[in-house]
Amino acid sequence: MPQNQHLFATVLAGGSGQRFWPLSRELNPKQLLSMFGTESLIAQAVHRILPFTESGASIVVSTNERLFDELRNHLTAQPDERLHAVRYIQEPLPKNTAPAIALAAATFAEQDPDAIMVVLPSDHLLEDGQLWADCIEAAAGVAQRGYLVTIGIAPTRPETGYGYICAGEVIEGAQVGGAHPHVAAEFVEKPEIERAEQFVASGKYFWNAGIFVMKASQVLEELDRAGGAEAAIAETARWIVSLPTSERNNEQVRERFSAIEPISIDKAVMERSEHVAVIPAGLKWSDVGSLLALEDIAEHDATGNVRHGRGVDIDSENTIVYSSDRLVATLGVKDLVVVDTTDATLVLPKDRAQDVRLVVDALKAVGAQEVTQPKVSLRPWGSWQSLLVGPGYQIKQLVIKPGSKPSLQKHFHRSEHWIVVEGVAVVTRDEDVFEVPVNNSAYIPLGSVHRIENRGTDLLKVIEVQVGDYLGEDDIVRLEDDWDRESK
Amino acid sequence: MPQNQHLFATVLAGGSGQRFWPLSRELNPKQLLSMFGTESLIAQAVHRILPFTESGASIVVSTNERLFDELRNHLTAQPDERLHAVRYIQEPLPKNTAPAIALAAATFAEQDPDAIMVVLPSDHLLEDGQLWADCIEAAAGVAQRGYLVTIGIAPTRPETGYGYICAGEVIEGAQVGGAHPHVAAEFVEKPEIERAEQFVASGKYFWNAGIFVMKASQVLEELDRAGGAEAAIAETARWIVSLPTSERNNEQVRERFSAIEPISIDKAVMERSEHVAVIPAGLKWSDVGSLLALEDIAEHDATGNVRHGRGVDIDSENTIVYSSDRLVATLGVKDLVVVDTTDATLVLPKDRAQDVRLVVDALKAVGAQEVTQPKVSLRPWGSWQSLLVGPGYQIKQLVIKPGSKPSLQKHFHRSEHWIVVEGVAVVTRDEDVFEVPVNNSAYIPLGSVHRIENRGTDLLKVIEVQVGDYLGEDDIVRLEDDWDRESK
Repeated sequence: MPQNQHLFATVLAGGSGQRFWPLSRELNPKQLLSMFGTESLIAQAVHRILPFTESGASIVVSTNERLFDELRNHLTAQPDERLHAVRYIQEPLPKNTAPAIALAAATFAEQDPDAIMVVLPSDHLLEDGQLWADCIEAAAGVAQRGYLVTIGIAPTRPETGYGYICAGEVIEGAQVGGAHPHVAAEFVEKPEIERAEQFVASGKYFWNAGIFVMKASQVLEELDRAGGAEAAIAETARWIVSLPTSERNNEQVRERFSAIEPISIDKAVMERSEHVAVIPAGLKWSDVGSLLALEDIAEHDATGNVRHGRGVDIDSENTIVYSSDRLVATLGVKDLVVVDTTDATLVLPKDRAQDVRLVVDALKAVGAQEVTQPKVSLRPWGSWQSLLVGPGYQIKQLVIKPGSKPSLQKHFHRSEHWIVVEGVAVVTRDEDVFEVPVNNSAYIPLGSVHRIENRGTDLLKVIEVQVGDYLGEDDIVRLEDDWDRESK
Repeated sequence: MPQNQHLFATVLAGGSGQRFWPLSRELNPKQLLSMFGTESLIAQAVHRILPFTESGASIVVSTNERLFDELRNHLTAQPDERLHAVRYIQEPLPKNTAPAIALAAATFAEQDPDAIMVVLPSDHLLEDGQLWADCIEAAAGVAQRGYLVTIGIAPTRPETGYGYICAGEVIEGAQVGGAHPHVAAEFVEKPEIERAEQFVASGKYFWNAGIFVMKASQVLEELDRAGGAEAAIAETARWIVSLPTSERNNEQVRERFSAIEPISIDKAVMERSEHVAVIPAGLKWSDVGSLLALEDIAEHDATGNVRHGRGVDIDSENTIVYSSDRLVATLGVKDLVVVDTTDATLVLPKDRAQDVRLVVDALKAVGAQEVTQPKVSLRPWGSWQSLLVGPGYQIKQLVIKPGSKPSLQKHFHRSEHWIVVEGVAVVTRDEDVFEVPVNNSAYIPLGSVHRIENRGTDLLKVIEVQVGDYLGEDDIVRLEDDWDRESK
């Protein structure tokens, strides 16, 4: 399919990914994880639709205020610059999929009354290639004729955790892999196993993967038609988009958005509209719904173990070991999942993989920061990680991207020593600006206005030794910032 | 019991403690672990006998060349200065207990023909107090009259993994807790469960805890009398002790020692001598034989879990979680052991706790340094640990004890930046000697002769950033050292 100037896409990226802890964190949700392919799930999602849109700017990442910084930092850190051009919609708070999709629909419809929008989850795996391109082309054609199109995935097993779409009458439109588009006759959420088996055997039921192709204007009209809470969603979305961009995060918006009923697009639109189509497709798909998805990242050994990372498994069977960097050994265990990250480890039997949120809830209750913060914190200018915290001192490694610089800042409670271990830094310290090459250091006294900058073309790596009576991240006064973070 | 100038002790500390990995390492064996009480097992062992000897110098820690540095660094790091006075016997290589005990016996007998020696394992737990003091006093008396005395622990369960001693006729001597000394009628190693049950029921069998009290001269005479390989052990021991101290580690010693048959003191002496006594004692004792010993370090929760360290256990049962510093969570597991250290994690079912050496062997085979090195390396002057290793740089934290200094040294391949984060350093850099207070730094250029010293009364903590093309521990030329390490 060629690029289509009327094609827009929204990538839904508000998920907090509790089920993937400790790999995911509240501020590093599943869509940012990179173990399922050569790039993160969200980068895969954006790349999935990018070839068919006019540019990255036709794609909107829909998220909430809490995750916005993390997602932007992540996507702007990707080597493909087209991903830097995507736009973002920040919902003041999560309200399920209908409000997010309505907000994107209103955005696209305002920009192009003929906009066709693709809705894509940000944290799934989906087979790419010709079949997918054919799907999008056919779906865009069917949507053009007034259908809300869902891509139905041909089921490979009687999964009881998914939703199913029943294909009804054939409708006009391009075939995809030999299959016609159909009217969607029925939506069934999480069937019993017997029913799921019948569905798979029938050949008429398809998995609802949350991928939709629809006229943006029609999405809003369908919400209007539903009336009540649904109509209020469309009205709020149109109103927010009518505001100048600078006002879309103000208190009034927050208030009206808070009043919205949280509801899914399936319930709000798909299950009640008369104009829903399904395009069946034999695409490989996974919702990467639990840590069991790690089973696919490596080959099984002779006794069914799957391992990523250093270590050994002695007399263990059917066990998944995922270690991000440390040594992990198992001895004589069976059907377990062991996930080990730089700062946290989780051990559970495979059949409890759906319950990881119980652990996250319990850890939250005891205030464990490991449920929120990843060990490496991404920033627009690169990343930092804490290496050691002691009484009155902290050691960090800063990695600063070529051409980037953290804010011009000062601290009230700490001095900093910077030792350059890779690259060349340009340091601003009050009135002075000077170069600090590798194996050299600079001292930033308490209260001094300072900045570090990477003017080179390679990464700059700096060891920062902080000494002071308070070392929190909130002791930063930003005087100037490339990413408008002064006010925070 | 008062101090006895003829009482000497050898603490057997050659064990490599594979069964406690990843808590123990080859260079940080079980006897150095501190989780079973307020101090390490070996410090407990030394303190157990110290009140009854003339001074710390009457105690010899018997170990091998590989562990000598680690043990000395550990004991000299203890706050009780009496532990700094203990002496060390380094066997060129491990040969089981008889040669180690013979070497200690020869050492003591040369110093004092009337020496009574106590043999103590370095890695067990044993109840201290009046009963123990009575045991030692009674045992010394019985040994004085020509018996090889064993302390027999009253068994509390039919343990099949231990050795048992049968108490025969009563002999003359002080009672201990109401029990007379007996002739040892029989040694039985690891009985079947039925037999072990009979032993416990009989009241006449006692656990062999490897604690012996004997005339040093008699130990050698019994070996002589046995002839053959045993007599060769006594002869070699006497010969080594006849050499000047400086020659006891030479090539000839190594050769003669290599020729010795490895044999236990039980087989070489106890099981064949006619003059063995047992003093039964109701002392609480554990050989801390496997990771299951961790069960005793904390209270069980309502579902039988024992936990040390941060984290949560959700729906888990009868599980031991030991975490030295990281967050560890379990969900729905049963009868597991999870041991998590700074650099390695082990997961196993409780009933495989005896097989941890299989993991160690497998890790050794793949060259994992985590089987050898602990994360924090003790040195005579304090300790260091690596915080981060990158291409061409490494970050370490050094902790230097009051009044201590690492060697005067230089490197051919690296520069070093020292940032003082606690205390005051005195830095020697070529011709200069200068103070570096907290929140100040010093740069040591490549090739420069340097030293860091703590002349204060508190700990000195320094962050060292190394930059260079080779960062191995062997790029150290020691020009002067308080611990005679120049030649290494």
